[in-house]
Amino acid sequence: MARTPKPIRSDIAWSTSDRITVRGKSLPDEILGHINLGDMAFLQLTGRMPTPQQSAVFNAVVITLVEHGITPSAIAARMTYAGAPESLQAAVAAGLCGLGTVFVGSMEGAARLLYEIMPEEADADLDAVARETVARYRAEKRILPGFGHPIHKPVDPRTPRLFAIAAENGMAGRYVDLIQRIHAEAERASGKPLTLNATGALGALCCEFGFPWRIVRGFGVMARAIGLVGHILEEAENPMAIEIWQRIEDEASSHMRPA
Amino acid sequence: MARTPKPIRSDIAWSTSDRITVRGKSLPDEILGHINLGDMAFLQLTGRMPTPQQSAVFNAVVITLVEHGITPSAIAARMTYAGAPESLQAAVAAGLCGLGTVFVGSMEGAARLLYEIMPEEADADLDAVARETVARYRAEKRILPGFGHPIHKPVDPRTPRLFAIAAENGMAGRYVDLIQRIHAEAERASGKPLTLNATGALGALCCEFGFPWRIVRGFGVMARAIGLVGHILEEAENPMAIEIWQRIEDEASSHMRPA
Amino acid sequence: MARTPKPIRSDIAWSTSDRITVRGKSLPDEILGHINLGDMAFLQLTGRMPTPQQSAVFNAVVITLVEHGITPSAIAARMTYAGAPESLQAAVAAGLCGLGTVFVGSMEGAARLLYEIMPEEADADLDAVARETVARYRAEKRILPGFGHPIHKPVDPRTPRLFAIAAENGMAGRYVDLIQRIHAEAERASGKPLTLNATGALGALCCEFGFPWRIVRGFGVMARAIGLVGHILEEAENPMAIEIWQRIEDEASSHMRPA
Amino acid sequence: MARTPKPIRSDIAWSTSDRITVRGKSLPDEILGHINLGDMAFLQLTGRMPTPQQSAVFNAVVITLVEHGITPSAIAARMTYAGAPESLQAAVAAGLCGLGTVFVGSMEGAARLLYEIMPEEADADLDAVARETVARYRAEKRILPGFGHPIHKPVDPRTPRLFAIAAENGMAGRYVDLIQRIHAEAERASGKPLTLNATGALGALCCEFGFPWRIVRGFGVMARAIGLVGHILEEAENPMAIEIWQRIEDEASSHMRPA
Repeated sequence: MARTPKPIRSDIAWSTSDRITVRGKSLPDEILGHINLGDMAFLQLTGRMPTPQQSAVFNAVVITLVEHGITPSAIAARMTYAGAPESLQAAVAAGLCGLGTVFVGSMEGAARLLYEIMPEEADADLDAVARETVARYRAEKRILPGFGHPIHKPVDPRTPRLFAIAAENGMAGRYVDLIQRIHAEAERASGKPLTLNATGALGALCCEFGFPWRIVRGFGVMARAIGLVGHILEEAENPMAIEIWQRIEDEASSHMRPA
Repeated sequence: MARTPKPIRSDIAWSTSDRITVRGKSLPDEILGHINLGDMAFLQLTGRMPTPQQSAVFNAVVITLVEHGITPSAIAARMTYAGAPESLQAAVAAGLCGLGTVFVGSMEGAARLLYEIMPEEADADLDAVARETVARYRAEKRILPGFGHPIHKPVDPRTPRLFAIAAENGMAGRYVDLIQRIHAEAERASGKPLTLNATGALGALCCEFGFPWRIVRGFGVMARAIGLVGHILEEAENPMAIEIWQRIEDEASSHMRPA
Repeated sequence: MARTPKPIRSDIAWSTSDRITVRGKSLPDEILGHINLGDMAFLQLTGRMPTPQQSAVFNAVVITLVEHGITPSAIAARMTYAGAPESLQAAVAAGLCGLGTVFVGSMEGAARLLYEIMPEEADADLDAVARETVARYRAEKRILPGFGHPIHKPVDPRTPRLFAIAAENGMAGRYVDLIQRIHAEAERASGKPLTLNATGALGALCCEFGFPWRIVRGFGVMARAIGLVGHILEEAENPMAIEIWQRIEDEASSHMRPA
Repeated sequence: MARTPKPIRSDIAWSTSDRITVRGKSLPDEILGHINLGDMAFLQLTGRMPTPQQSAVFNAVVITLVEHGITPSAIAARMTYAGAPESLQAAVAAGLCGLGTVFVGSMEGAARLLYEIMPEEADADLDAVARETVARYRAEKRILPGFGHPIHKPVDPRTPRLFAIAAENGMAGRYVDLIQRIHAEAERASGKPLTLNATGALGALCCEFGFPWRIVRGFGVMARAIGLVGHILEEAENPMAIEIWQRIEDEASSHMRPA
């Protein structure tokens, strides 16, 4: 019983001997020298060139996620590079593997929540939506994705700046509005300041673009790939991985090792 | 015998409750909304803002490497996503793991070769260097890194465009000059057309920037991370991985399976 | 405001100049030459040497997961090896990245379900538990983890063999009993044959051992690492990755490429 | 110009509805319950069942590489798990990515060297080979792969045990002989004790089996996959990753952060 093969098709790019086309545009003639790297990412994902306003906001979204200091992801990449300096790509890969639910997931979660609760009607009462959402999360003792931060209190300095860039470019729409109402309502309900963090702001901006929530994590992944190359370059010139290893190995097993 | 710990230090970024600084610049105030993603990559790697000319050439360098169609790297990422759609980051990581000596290595190799053979004297005879290099590689029956291409013959359409962008921005210097002389000499010596491919052109441009050859592969890695997110988004919407798997599994084991 | 460091501690292994101890046993004197690789895995994970019965069952559990033909995971590993043959470890890593919810998750899901529904009382009515569970999954239109198989119908040949090995070694206890009752009830309720697949059987055996459900996926990961090394060795000697790439690239973009 | 597809073929495994065959043996009937995990690895790689002697030595080879305490690889895996606990497979993958030239490469290097210098004639003067090899490495100021160790001085306790297991099983042949002669000659030439480390011993044993040197790294990879699952289980129960991160982040950026 032979199976009938299904067609295999991609709409991203094609090449012939003298042409390379990405998303319908000539890479040499219409892309190289005409757009910046953030625009290229936008084109690669959406199949469209960004407007100047979309370019400004999208570049800011991805740039926000490039660098966060010596994160667990950066440590994993540096440890990997120490063992396999000939495989820089594997060191970046190792660093990316940890961009899961704990650190980048809240951006995805914020986008998903906003899509789920946004009413279809243009004149819906967003304050009522915010109240209902905050009450529900409080009743279920769940953390609102995109809120809270261990360091940036009471304000994450990236958040107002991202919203300002969105407003300057006509992209601070209903999703930005809604997450700000959720923020106000959450502070009112708890009686305490609560940080609307960068992942919450970024999640809202991703909704303004209409990106599927499942791909939102991908912006963090592409941005961090850039950041990790920077960490690996620094590790090559001024290493810390071996010193971290020796300190930790020493401390972790000292209770077992004979005196 | 206790060891003395060595200091651990990074010069990339720091944060306090209300500040985030990358390479000495305020992320909210001096970076977001002011530069594009390619410039951010340049800043992250070099610690300096690019000049407008550097920005133009560097963005073109990285953009060249974002997308190449259904490569082995894209297939690996799509296969991984099919098994673990909840871990988009791991699918990108899997795709990056294969950016090694076979596909991206020639860019690194071209940069390394150019650094090795470039004379220190400003008025050196680059034609003599090119002749000596081509003769040596021919004698050792080695392939010149950055030359040849299975599809793009006799001209890789990216190469002249990259050199034109470099020239427009005053960055077509000695390394671009040298690789072009090597190209001419290699064609003369063999009597056949030989493609100076994009990785050769990119390697030369990396030398113009002065990037260490060990980090050159990193530009391919960061670019491809962007490209792979695009492939995973397409895979989520219009999958091919399961179909590839079933076809290959079926064919590969048909000689063993009882009729 | 300096933070107080918390202790860092591992209980797995320690070394001095002339000793290497893993889980309290001398690696040279008490482990090497005394146990097999499956027992070593058991020791590494539990801190205890397996009994002969545990050794028999645990080795069978892990062996079941080593090899499954040309899976998406094997294809990802082979594609990666084609691009970076100098980084065999990265090819295995790429292959492992896809062992997520789709292919290996059902083993974890089966173990988790069995732990959740198993009553504490030794004389509980397991048939009633099975009926309630099947009814609940049917009402919620959810698939029972560990059941169904695209190829192995109506019986997965691994399942009866795994249960027989468990029974021979006194390890076919309440969890094996319960999943078999769920199997019978599910077939009765639907009126159709339903495969109790290997991941269901393995999930039940993991419960017999008392392994936390979160680590169950780890047995699939360690087993597949072994299998993938085999695939990479074959790829090195008789490659298929480049041929797959060329076929897929060609077909996927043919609708865009000019005739 | 259509290309002619080349055949795609694997000789490892096949399945039908009621059969699963690996390397020509029925997985349920001839493998499960009959062999241990090390033997399964041997079968997967070679296509043959090991003799009892091969089983004893091969299991010891792989077991040696399972666990080494808090290595850079274990730290990378734990960091990754902290960020993506839902992707255990990605944490193992991240840990494997660093098993490159620095830590595991010397096993591969030892095997490669031994294959290269072993004379074809059965009665060759191995002492002369050892002398010539040591002299060449000393003249080129290169480190002999498999020699030296930062902790295990003057004897790596695994080395004599591995050779003893090989001897007990009739597998301490010419390669073991040759590396021991190299060891004696290297100590004689330098006048100082030099450790013949475990990777040297393992490299020699891999040559006794006749494994291609390119796959030798794979034994380290499969073994470490087992070890890393143990580290991740411990990390889940008694974490250290977040504490490491906070300490390192704090120290690394303290010179930049305002007081």
